[in-house]
Amino acid sequence: MIRLAVDTKGGDFGPETTVYGACLAMHDNPELSFLLFGLPDEIEQAIPDFADRGRLEIISAEEEITDDHNPLKAIRKKQDSSIVKGLTAVAEGSADAFVSAGSSGAIYAGSLLHIGLMPDIKRPAAVSILPTVSKTAPNYLLIDSGANTASKPEHLVQYGKLGSDIAGQLLGVENPRVGLLNIGSEASKGNDFTKAAHQLLETSEELNFTGNVEPNVLLSGTNDVVLSDGFTGNIMLKSVEGTAEILMNDLLNNLKNDEKLDENAVKAVEDTVRSSISRYTNEDIGGGFILGIKAPVIITHGAADRTMFKHSVEIAARLADSSTFST
Amino acid sequence: MIRLAVDTKGGDFGPETTVYGACLAMHDNPELSFLLFGLPDEIEQAIPDFADRGRLEIISAEEEITDDHNPLKAIRKKQDSSIVKGLTAVAEGSADAFVSAGSSGAIYAGSLLHIGLMPDIKRPAAVSILPTVSKTAPNYLLIDSGANTASKPEHLVQYGKLGSDIAGQLLGVENPRVGLLNIGSEASKGNDFTKAAHQLLETSEELNFTGNVEPNVLLSGTNDVVLSDGFTGNIMLKSVEGTAEILMNDLLNNLKNDEKLDENAVKAVEDTVRSSISRYTNEDIGGGFILGIKAPVIITHGAADRTMFKHSVEIAARLADSSTFST
Repeated sequence: MIRLAVDTKGGDFGPETTVYGACLAMHDNPELSFLLFGLPDEIEQAIPDFADRGRLEIISAEEEITDDHNPLKAIRKKQDSSIVKGLTAVAEGSADAFVSAGSSGAIYAGSLLHIGLMPDIKRPAAVSILPTVSKTAPNYLLIDSGANTASKPEHLVQYGKLGSDIAGQLLGVENPRVGLLNIGSEASKGNDFTKAAHQLLETSEELNFTGNVEPNVLLSGTNDVVLSDGFTGNIMLKSVEGTAEILMNDLLNNLKNDEKLDENAVKAVEDTVRSSISRYTNEDIGGGFILGIKAPVIITHGAADRTMFKHSVEIAARLADSSTFST
Repeated sequence: MIRLAVDTKGGDFGPETTVYGACLAMHDNPELSFLLFGLPDEIEQAIPDFADRGRLEIISAEEEITDDHNPLKAIRKKQDSSIVKGLTAVAEGSADAFVSAGSSGAIYAGSLLHIGLMPDIKRPAAVSILPTVSKTAPNYLLIDSGANTASKPEHLVQYGKLGSDIAGQLLGVENPRVGLLNIGSEASKGNDFTKAAHQLLETSEELNFTGNVEPNVLLSGTNDVVLSDGFTGNIMLKSVEGTAEILMNDLLNNLKNDEKLDENAVKAVEDTVRSSISRYTNEDIGGGFILGIKAPVIITHGAADRTMFKHSVEIAARLADSSTFST
């Protein structure tokens, strides 16, 4: 049985999304059980009829941490918050992983404080699971997608090794292809940081380093792991997500106002457009996670819906079950 | 009369695109005349019937500079190339601007050597003219989109002032809204470079600085000028362009294979999809230009077609006619 600690309060929609999403995952995965942290009354109300009560435990956590709080102060003060109690449950071994749609700053701070770093890791990184149009390699891991704005080249080598392990298990690929995000494919291209990182990565024998990769080709499935400093990674993440979202909405508007198309055609096309593009409009597919912390900690979008939260829970389960964490 | 020097050899398709594109612009703009640099026979063959010969002058330039050459060496050695002869014509005042789809490295090096920097400018920047979905602000200028991978905060202030002048004239906006590309809107967000640049930009009284701007909102038309170091700007440029291109192709494929749509519906939709998205799939709309050089130098895509090259020529004409350059 895999035991997951779920922050039911985080996110824009609270328990009606988080509790429901967790129960959806429970329904599809017989080996999952849950510790649900939050307000017991709210949690009770949000549990759907199809849930298996025997695999649910409700644990009261009354305090709230929001994006407005100073993350570190909030983590230190609010001992009765769902984030602190959920992370503590993982640290103490009563749960295998933590899932939250709450304040990412607070979750980072809390993960460092309560769970701690893996050996040899200097700073944790944010990992986003990003989509491609490739049928054979539909996803890749972007590391660091926004945690450290001043990453060092040696951090990228650490992220590459750990990211390769996890990509193998999470994406099911053998010998993951590791690329360095850059503005040109030649080793001489880029800024001082990417030039230094390229040299280090190239000489690392434990990595299947395929060289520099430019953001315009990544979506075609060129790599399984893409390394970057957190500033550049975040710029790319928001560019891809923003472009997909804005273009999809603009296109749907234009289709609706197209006089050549009747109502039925517009509806049929709308479905195809949404299913083709909507995978790319979310920052990640169900959730990103923190790399370098001793246990799996999954941070999903505040705006995640039930299905997306379910995916986050399933990612947590796969990470908890992987050899990187379960040993 | 505005006189434009055109490199007919640059680009993937040579004179059949560049000469034809220039003639298209000439046809629509009675105040334009051209110096066409390249192989006279090839140029002659590419001139369409509708061209006004009286506004065309053909100047022989036999040597070729390609992307494979070392830019600076090629510019120094190949005195009979279309790039060196075209830039020299601008430097000597026999043309008002230079347009090329050739090697951007060579055009940069040649522009510095033959035309030279504007006073107070330390390094030239690349400007890309990027699209938005906004009806009222359909374009913005991204500066630097890839020339300097190690820009300094003070460069961005210079680019902001000069870029505002040009945006006012090129995009027809009053008091252009200048933003700083960053991963968060608060002044405290970002890396050391963006924090320092934010402080400098905020205190500059000559700029309408609107603060940090994230890449995911830019496409909605939030700014007229967006400042960045050349590395980050290039990452964003390639992310936006790549996402639009890959999503468009994927979507068109899915529409063709959609069993709910008949052939006529697919055709009708294809047109709308292409016209909605194809604006965003090019690196720029007709061409980027070099900021900080004493005369307008326009570099367009190697893969530019006739229409795109025509647009580049028209941008050259507008820049040549603007107060930034014409005085």
